[in-house]
Amino acid sequence: MRTPSCLLPLTLDSAVLNLSNITDLSPLPDHILIELFLRTLRAGKLTERVLKLFIATGKDEVFSLIQELNIQVTVNPVLPTRTLNSDLTSFMNAWRPIFSRFHLIIVKDLDLKEEIKIPEGFNLDVYEKPDIDRLVGTSTSIIFSGYACRYFGYLVSRKKYIISVDDDCLPAKDNKGFLVDAVSQHITNLTTPATPFFFNTLYDPFTEGADFVRGYPFSLRSGVTCVLSCGLWHNLADYDAPTQALKPEERNSRYVDAVLTVPARTLMPISGINIAFNRDVVGPALLPCLRLAAEGKFRWETMEDIWSGMCVKVICDHLRLGVKTGLPYVWRNDRGDAIASLRKEWEGVKMMEEVVPFFQSLRLPQEATTAEDCVVEVANAVKEKLGSKDPVFARTAKAMLDWVKLWKSVGGCSSSPGA
Amino acid sequence: MRTPSCLLPLTLDSAVLNLSNITDLSPLPDHILIELFLRTLRAGKLTERVLKLFIATGKDEVFSLIQELNIQVTVNPVLPTRTLNSDLTSFMNAWRPIFSRFHLIIVKDLDLKEEIKIPEGFNLDVYEKPDIDRLVGTSTSIIFSGYACRYFGYLVSRKKYIISVDDDCLPAKDNKGFLVDAVSQHITNLTTPATPFFFNTLYDPFTEGADFVRGYPFSLRSGVTCVLSCGLWHNLADYDAPTQALKPEERNSRYVDAVLTVPARTLMPISGINIAFNRDVVGPALLPCLRLAAEGKFRWETMEDIWSGMCVKVICDHLRLGVKTGLPYVWRNDRGDAIASLRKEWEGVKMMEEVVPFFQSLRLPQEATTAEDCVVEVANAVKEKLGSKDPVFARTAKAMLDWVKLWKSVGGCSSSPGA
Repeated sequence: MRTPSCLLPLTLDSAVLNLSNITDLSPLPDHILIELFLRTLRAGKLTERVLKLFIATGKDEVFSLIQELNIQVTVNPVLPTRTLNSDLTSFMNAWRPIFSRFHLIIVKDLDLKEEIKIPEGFNLDVYEKPDIDRLVGTSTSIIFSGYACRYFGYLVSRKKYIISVDDDCLPAKDNKGFLVDAVSQHITNLTTPATPFFFNTLYDPFTEGADFVRGYPFSLRSGVTCVLSCGLWHNLADYDAPTQALKPEERNSRYVDAVLTVPARTLMPISGINIAFNRDVVGPALLPCLRLAAEGKFRWETMEDIWSGMCVKVICDHLRLGVKTGLPYVWRNDRGDAIASLRKEWEGVKMMEEVVPFFQSLRLPQEATTAEDCVVEVANAVKEKLGSKDPVFARTAKAMLDWVKLWKSVGGCSSSPGA
Repeated sequence: MRTPSCLLPLTLDSAVLNLSNITDLSPLPDHILIELFLRTLRAGKLTERVLKLFIATGKDEVFSLIQELNIQVTVNPVLPTRTLNSDLTSFMNAWRPIFSRFHLIIVKDLDLKEEIKIPEGFNLDVYEKPDIDRLVGTSTSIIFSGYACRYFGYLVSRKKYIISVDDDCLPAKDNKGFLVDAVSQHITNLTTPATPFFFNTLYDPFTEGADFVRGYPFSLRSGVTCVLSCGLWHNLADYDAPTQALKPEERNSRYVDAVLTVPARTLMPISGINIAFNRDVVGPALLPCLRLAAEGKFRWETMEDIWSGMCVKVICDHLRLGVKTGLPYVWRNDRGDAIASLRKEWEGVKMMEEVVPFFQSLRLPQEATTAEDCVVEVANAVKEKLGSKDPVFARTAKAMLDWVKLWKSVGGCSSSPGA
């Protein structure tokens, strides 16, 4: 642990947090400038604007550091979008101001027969059944249909950050009525540190206008890398079918203006509706492996993302990586009849009673140091501890091992899109 | 664990959450009505309005249950207020719409020489040095001066719920511009369950318009008793002196419209500026035992509440009780010169580097089943594990044991106020 016995490191840490207020770094002595640059980098605060601020000093030391570290400022999120609905026109047009800046991946649900319609003006690749068959083959237990089709996009993308939004969601508005740029908010969440080892009562200390409160240990203030950002939903919240059926009129309109790190060893139901993650670090831990026997085409009839979320959270805790939740919101349109889904949903609801205690008590061996290693360890534990309780768990464990193999063979090398 | 194999318990649980939308319970069959009543009670949802709803059914079974359980609808928070400032006129007048409904306790800082001024129209008791000496004597290591004077109020109150607000705080406004009734919000936080064993991404599921999200295990939805509610601060946030000194202009204006349970085994820096707690259950665990050698009269020169907060959180986790944070906000006025405080503050800042790992690894024995038991266990562990690191810890451990003795002798029996 670092003891803050000298004012300089503290001043530098504070300067890192206040970079947005700084317009000129040139008066700084060289060694302090370099130290500030390194701390900025470690804190995930080296945005394009901040980098320009350093470049503007004209100092050779800064230039050589930038070259040495091979720093690139562009961030290119990818958007895999599953589709049940073949006409994406209104969806894409609503997202145009945000998505048109990025390269998109759209994966067509294997069960969808019609051609999909996409308006002009986007930079995108569409993947359909022939592309999937060609890359993945048929010898695997992974099925990219329904909500799980998006995971094919995670597999073939080569971008560091991936953002994924369900196609029944539109951009939301914030509490001042402005359109929420969900991509920017997710990228901010992923590029600023997470603080999973101690709770900060003012929530994300890296948000503008916030900081660590009195009593927060200084040695924990640098935080850890954030690799998963879970966004929320306005209008139709992500409830299960029983809850939605019992509250047919309930819509979520509360704007909670906060991002927070979910503490280490705290599990949560991670929804796949509106998420972003660092593919380089945890890509293989987001996995389409749990498929309910009576899985349907509405969100509340699936548990694939909840399972994947339990896996990725346990893996992040083990690898000392961070998970954030909160902003950004998306506007989620109504779809499906919750009462009709009630019969299917019980399977998923009951399953969590076994799954939660399992993941709460799961500890991974120290030798597991990558997301791939960890997925294999989780899969083996699932087979051993849950395999006898329900056939779904044995199938899931098998699919997780297949997924790691697939990720190693396909996820690591470049691919060309079809269609 | 309860498996939700039948729709009735689910329907009842949902009805409990939706009581605010129900205007007539009389059509319900008797056995369902009684079951709903008991669930409402367990969920902490038996407000005055809801009780009237049950009474309005006119069913004998309901009346006898109310009599049997000795249910009383009034909640009487107590407000201990420490004072550095002898003139409380503007403070009390600002809080009048809220505080005039309740019985207040004001404890005068032992170091304050002047008479305190309090406007008319409040139901209150003021405690000063002679009252404290009479009840506590001088043979104890507990010193009720500075911020610690409030704990004398905690000791002598006989109310179930205690609310405590620093005298440099005024009522805040919500995001619609309405005055925040901090007492009502704290009482809502304390009388609805907490959910420390699994994180709910829509935050407090018992808030109006919210619920448990898809994937949240049904067996954990009943939650546990919430015993501590930590509120937040607008304007001057509760930063330490270094942070405030480095950001002299920073003021908190973000209104985060949320209450959330701090997960089990997650530690946090609990501020004493704006809190409420269930005195019957955790009263003895809020303790004025840590006193810095250079403790001052500004919040950022103290750690007494942070220490107390670490103790109470560890004890709540051990006893399976809940702690919430978030709403309500209070408006905190500027006071003190952070730069002048920097010299004193280092002691507290450095201390946390020892304290946090200690509390994170602390496990209490199963035999400790009350807050008093737990405080004794924590005190013994502090003496053993931290005692040799700094004399402040040995003094604190001794004061904690004295506090439990004091609570047993004074905290349990009735007292009459002086002056």
